[in-house]
Amino acid sequence: MAAARALKSRNEVENPTSKVLKFGADKPLALAAGVMLSPFQIAYQTYGTLNEARSNAILVCHALTGDQHVANDNPVTGKPGWWDVLIGPGKIIDTDRFFVICSNVIGGCLGSTGPASINPATDKPYGLDLPVITIKDMVRAQAMLVDHFGIDRLFCVLGGSMGGMQVLEWAASYPERVFSALPIAAGARHSAQNIAFNEVGRQAVMADPDWHGGTYFETGKRPEKGLAVARMAAHITYLSEAALHRKFGRNLQDRDALTFGFDADFQIESYLRHQGMTFVDRFDANSYLYLTRAMDYFDLAADHGGLLANAFVGTSTRFCLVSFTSDWLFPTEESRAVVHALNAAGASVSFVEIETDRGHDAFLLDEPELFAAINGFLRSAARARGLEEL
Amino acid sequence: MAAARALKSRNEVENPTSKVLKFGADKPLALAAGVMLSPFQIAYQTYGTLNEARSNAILVCHALTGDQHVANDNPVTGKPGWWDVLIGPGKIIDTDRFFVICSNVIGGCLGSTGPASINPATDKPYGLDLPVITIKDMVRAQAMLVDHFGIDRLFCVLGGSMGGMQVLEWAASYPERVFSALPIAAGARHSAQNIAFNEVGRQAVMADPDWHGGTYFETGKRPEKGLAVARMAAHITYLSEAALHRKFGRNLQDRDALTFGFDADFQIESYLRHQGMTFVDRFDANSYLYLTRAMDYFDLAADHGGLLANAFVGTSTRFCLVSFTSDWLFPTEESRAVVHALNAAGASVSFVEIETDRGHDAFLLDEPELFAAINGFLRSAARARGLEEL
Repeated sequence: MAAARALKSRNEVENPTSKVLKFGADKPLALAAGVMLSPFQIAYQTYGTLNEARSNAILVCHALTGDQHVANDNPVTGKPGWWDVLIGPGKIIDTDRFFVICSNVIGGCLGSTGPASINPATDKPYGLDLPVITIKDMVRAQAMLVDHFGIDRLFCVLGGSMGGMQVLEWAASYPERVFSALPIAAGARHSAQNIAFNEVGRQAVMADPDWHGGTYFETGKRPEKGLAVARMAAHITYLSEAALHRKFGRNLQDRDALTFGFDADFQIESYLRHQGMTFVDRFDANSYLYLTRAMDYFDLAADHGGLLANAFVGTSTRFCLVSFTSDWLFPTEESRAVVHALNAAGASVSFVEIETDRGHDAFLLDEPELFAAINGFLRSAARARGLEEL
Repeated sequence: MAAARALKSRNEVENPTSKVLKFGADKPLALAAGVMLSPFQIAYQTYGTLNEARSNAILVCHALTGDQHVANDNPVTGKPGWWDVLIGPGKIIDTDRFFVICSNVIGGCLGSTGPASINPATDKPYGLDLPVITIKDMVRAQAMLVDHFGIDRLFCVLGGSMGGMQVLEWAASYPERVFSALPIAAGARHSAQNIAFNEVGRQAVMADPDWHGGTYFETGKRPEKGLAVARMAAHITYLSEAALHRKFGRNLQDRDALTFGFDADFQIESYLRHQGMTFVDRFDANSYLYLTRAMDYFDLAADHGGLLANAFVGTSTRFCLVSFTSDWLFPTEESRAVVHALNAAGASVSFVEIETDRGHDAFLLDEPELFAAINGFLRSAARARGLEEL
């Protein structure tokens, strides 16, 4: 519950254990909703050192429930960073060579401006008064952070799931600033089924009377039950049926026989309940609404006259797309559609479909084929960029 | 809201617009939970006439949210019976030839004893004091109803989804009483993923403070929001991704552009919300808990020493199994596992996998290939049974 208290404290939301870049009235964030967000701030972490040429920067974009703590122990959960297996000194993304940046997305709840931040107009948390945030807004804010470092061109932008959406948006919005792009387990738009699951999650949050129209910060309560249900539903979509069968099957939880009751008889039940309960300790319910909405709204083709290839015309970015055979949230066809569009736009693109039964969440796991693909792509891109090889 | 009131009224729950068979203290229902349920009652509908030999009876088993009104207008919703397209005079299941029985399952909420029924020990609705019900319990009660008609052997038992589970249980528990069995879009056990989705639904109901530990009948409120969320999540699993894409895609609801808010921008959102809202008007939340639990508990192999073939040893029942290519709730492998077990048991079995993008709910739709399969199987079985052909 320490984590829950951390999130509840306005001071800690405003001043997380991260570096924070604040943008004042002179530098508002132009939102797709048609309004200016100001002031706003970005909480971020960096790893490694920016070289003199400022050519070795890698931007990592996090997924829906991720955060900027990609390669350091997470101050909220105490667990290792979410891509700690991939990023660090001597690792595949070697922080002895690269300067890695990861920022909490706008709309998030770990230090960047989001619905829990103070609305200067009311001196209360925004709640639903924050305009709806889009993937493009997140990326525009990240570009301002990259400007702050004086980096004209990122060596690589990479991320999985919602992070992969940001990668695609970066490549479309700022092609000259992205030397290489690596979207993993993502797509150029959210499907009807994905929107449906997100809507279930939002309705679960909003059905909780403690949500209180989004103003729960004023009541001292939070919609924990609703958010836990939302997380449970979403979590099913992150795993494959095969993985659930392999890991849990119909195994019973600490008992020899069915109890003929509504406790968690099956391991899969107690696993899901645990996922729901721990999630509410580290995530803000309104942020969950905003970030799922951002994913639903994402449709790169629609933003470019209905033709996805238009998003990438004339690009010189080098792309590598990765999908997983058992990912039913962003199935391989979604990545393949992007590959086709990139081919039509004449872009340099490679595509790796990885055979695994671990589902969508494979991008977060110690998946050797994924790491090999990332490694190969980055080494090749580093040579092309003239970055010293190890 | 007439429907909601109908469900709320204790009199109407106890005395539905159906025939009702009451079993007194002399005829308790032995439940798998190890207790006797008494008194109890079964609400049912019949269509057509039982012939003199009592050999033309077809038992239809309904799915999770179905009911006994299979071929007449539903008194709660006013809509046609849920298999009205299939069953009736001159239809594929011809009520001019066959005597069709359909009963509300034990644990249900349309007249058969369930959690909304009065607990004689307290004179209040059972709520969670009703023992957990299993598929086997539902079938045992149906057998007592079939006894009431003096029918030794049913010509056919058929149903889809949870109805198909009952068909398999009938064939396993009463092989000599089932001449032919037709389980559609079902399986011999609930998978980990299916249990996971059911658990999300139950947690959504239980998270609603109006659920009140299941005693909401005493408060005048019902956990409508929680039940609606449960229905929304479940409804996604009844449709295929392809069907959602075809029917809804990313189409907007009555508007030209995104609203940058949390209203139902997308058609899929308003469709799901509608599914949730109308469901609570016709279904009892506690029944939802009980019936999903019954599905989760179903594991025919486990009930027969761990080997599914054991459930069917020596059977003379003729089987036909039907699955749909796009059904990811009960994928074809689940039906195929039953077919393999039936083959191992030396049973007469045919198997039809129907190519469709309509997902699990295809069994409820006007699906020509399904109807052709049912028709062919029933005609062949009727000849074998010596029933006069049309």
